[in-house]
Amino acid sequence: MYPVSTDEVRAILQAAARVGAPIVPFGAGSSLEGHVNAVEGGISIDFARMNRVLRLSVEDLDVTVEAGITHRELNKALANTGVHFWVDPGADATIGGMAATGASGTTTVRYGTMRETVRGLTVVLADGRLIRTGGRARKSSAGYDLTRLFIGSEGTLGVITEITLRVYGHPEAVSAAICAFDSLEGAVQTVITTIQLGIPVARIELLDEVMVDAVNRFSNLTHAVKPTLLFEFHGTSQAGVSEHATSVQEIAAEHGGANFEWATTTEDRARLWRARHNTLPASRAMRPGCHCWVTDVCVPISQLAECILETKRDLQASKAFAPLVGHVGDGNFHLNFVLDRDDPAEFNEVKALNHRLVQRAIAMGGTCTGEHGIGMGKIDVLEEEHGEAVEVMKAIKQALDPENRMNPGKILRL
Amino acid sequence: MYPVSTDEVRAILQAAARVGAPIVPFGAGSSLEGHVNAVEGGISIDFARMNRVLRLSVEDLDVTVEAGITHRELNKALANTGVHFWVDPGADATIGGMAATGASGTTTVRYGTMRETVRGLTVVLADGRLIRTGGRARKSSAGYDLTRLFIGSEGTLGVITEITLRVYGHPEAVSAAICAFDSLEGAVQTVITTIQLGIPVARIELLDEVMVDAVNRFSNLTHAVKPTLLFEFHGTSQAGVSEHATSVQEIAAEHGGANFEWATTTEDRARLWRARHNTLPASRAMRPGCHCWVTDVCVPISQLAECILETKRDLQASKAFAPLVGHVGDGNFHLNFVLDRDDPAEFNEVKALNHRLVQRAIAMGGTCTGEHGIGMGKIDVLEEEHGEAVEVMKAIKQALDPENRMNPGKILRL
Repeated sequence: MYPVSTDEVRAILQAAARVGAPIVPFGAGSSLEGHVNAVEGGISIDFARMNRVLRLSVEDLDVTVEAGITHRELNKALANTGVHFWVDPGADATIGGMAATGASGTTTVRYGTMRETVRGLTVVLADGRLIRTGGRARKSSAGYDLTRLFIGSEGTLGVITEITLRVYGHPEAVSAAICAFDSLEGAVQTVITTIQLGIPVARIELLDEVMVDAVNRFSNLTHAVKPTLLFEFHGTSQAGVSEHATSVQEIAAEHGGANFEWATTTEDRARLWRARHNTLPASRAMRPGCHCWVTDVCVPISQLAECILETKRDLQASKAFAPLVGHVGDGNFHLNFVLDRDDPAEFNEVKALNHRLVQRAIAMGGTCTGEHGIGMGKIDVLEEEHGEAVEVMKAIKQALDPENRMNPGKILRL
Repeated sequence: MYPVSTDEVRAILQAAARVGAPIVPFGAGSSLEGHVNAVEGGISIDFARMNRVLRLSVEDLDVTVEAGITHRELNKALANTGVHFWVDPGADATIGGMAATGASGTTTVRYGTMRETVRGLTVVLADGRLIRTGGRARKSSAGYDLTRLFIGSEGTLGVITEITLRVYGHPEAVSAAICAFDSLEGAVQTVITTIQLGIPVARIELLDEVMVDAVNRFSNLTHAVKPTLLFEFHGTSQAGVSEHATSVQEIAAEHGGANFEWATTTEDRARLWRARHNTLPASRAMRPGCHCWVTDVCVPISQLAECILETKRDLQASKAFAPLVGHVGDGNFHLNFVLDRDDPAEFNEVKALNHRLVQRAIAMGGTCTGEHGIGMGKIDVLEEEHGEAVEVMKAIKQALDPENRMNPGKILRL
């Protein structure tokens, strides 16, 4: 169904409650963990027609939107207002979907995830009741934090219909750079030192040599085929940005990073970031006709080099092809396994590699998913990662959705 | 009881479950909303003997502590490690208490509240089960965000025994300043513009003229008796800090702020911040023998000047004495009502003034509590502020503590 307002969503949920129908919210369909699959049938609520900006306050740096607007549509609407919404998961996901999965992305190291970005939600519950969580104040200690409970709940506790978001002014000065390293450890140590010193990077992304090769071929580029960091700096003046950029260049040089290439104009930056933006199609293009399976572990950054190196050894002992890209400032990286899904041997090998990767990340104090969510694919590893806490999640689910009609089959095995 | 470990807390909760005893966690007792009152009797768990630092990773900028350590004790333990824990609610509260109330303070505009600072918790549930929430990764989308659910739950869902916190490196350069304004609106507009431009202030605090007068008398200072802003800037270099400070000075000058007084040495900063740190005793000293009742509203900053001015008009029409201090970068301000609690007329007048203040804040899109929590004192206004959402909070409480033994009488009326 295609509601045009929160009231219509309420009417749908009230009707569904009467007949006992499951509810599956649908945004842009860009989720990677099967979140929008109607495994028990029921009603799909498509938010395509709820894509309005409801209000904006430039003074308070916040905006309220309907769940179906995508982040690119939102930023188009914000053009010429002086403010920008910064969470960017790559795909042009809807804000409702991003809230529901606790999304983040390349700018999270500076601007946070959806958890730090959402100030309040309008949610329709399983029985059709409407609640408003949070508010417009920058902080509050008024009762349980329902806002963050619904963020990342993947539609299993209720349907998010409206979201109040924090926005930021456009930075006065922006600079970007790319730098190749002799070793992966050197690249990761550069990241650790940069963050430890409090140098405010806005983006800091790692591509391994396999990914650089894929991107070079896909976009006809000539980057050195080595572990590579991409940086972006945002600041209130060119002098400030230059100071930070120079500091990072010095840190990189100490760890085997050379040939810094700078970009300060919008065009140069776009050219530099093309490498990052095309990682998914570039990965796929290495094996035409194949599919991509994207992993999503996140570990403490002190463990990041070891986690990646162990994983690469594991990959080398296999036949799998998996270029790597990571939001390394947060300790989060993705392998883009490119595989023939119809080849059971290949599929099982990738499955086993991914399983070992997740085990490795959890053993290092990390998580099976930094930003994609649990969906259908990671229900078992959620239990490995959180143990008894999953029982608390189930108790909350039972309290808010006793008939298990809200996006059933996701996050929890009931 | 004085447990020395999470295991002992489990044993206490298991015993309490058998006999049906209420549980009231106790930290430093610095809460302002009656959180530690044993309104139904039961067992008080005092965390005085659980005050160890359990682990520290300077590389990952995180530390795990027991709930009973205070933030000053923690920072003493962190001395010479290069990192610092930044949330400072004023009183030397325990980290467990600060997590339980969702505390924040003067540095929140830069370093966030406890919600952004806590990465994971160890919690003992009503029936003695132990869970670990969150983890050490900088972000995760693995299931419901139980960490933020327990932050601000004021001991009503379980007992927090261990906390993993984000810490930050010491800033390379620090500068502070004080500036008096012709009008309160000018001071607030300076705050709004500063934040809108993305100038990274680490602290930005407002004292009204009544408070400046009280502080001058208490500490024998000679600040101009006008609405006054105190600033602190943290940065990676003196040049960067100076640039930001100069920008703010220019913004202030446009809004009637003059006589900027700068402090870059540690001693000068301590002298400058003495005004802020002594606001509570200075308020009390204006009426010896009287008590302080501290309000805690937080509003969108676009509404802040109007909220304060309306409140001051209300105060002027009364006999109450209430100097004002605020974390204005977050839209949060406190009135320190100094009153004779034994005078029913005076008590009722303050109660009515506070009630109107809370109504005003909620009407402006704000909250009844920015950082102190609900406790016993704000249960009714929580319902006004959050309406039907309070029923969801009650359902969660019922799911996790069906016998209502966890800090009963706080947050919710059951």
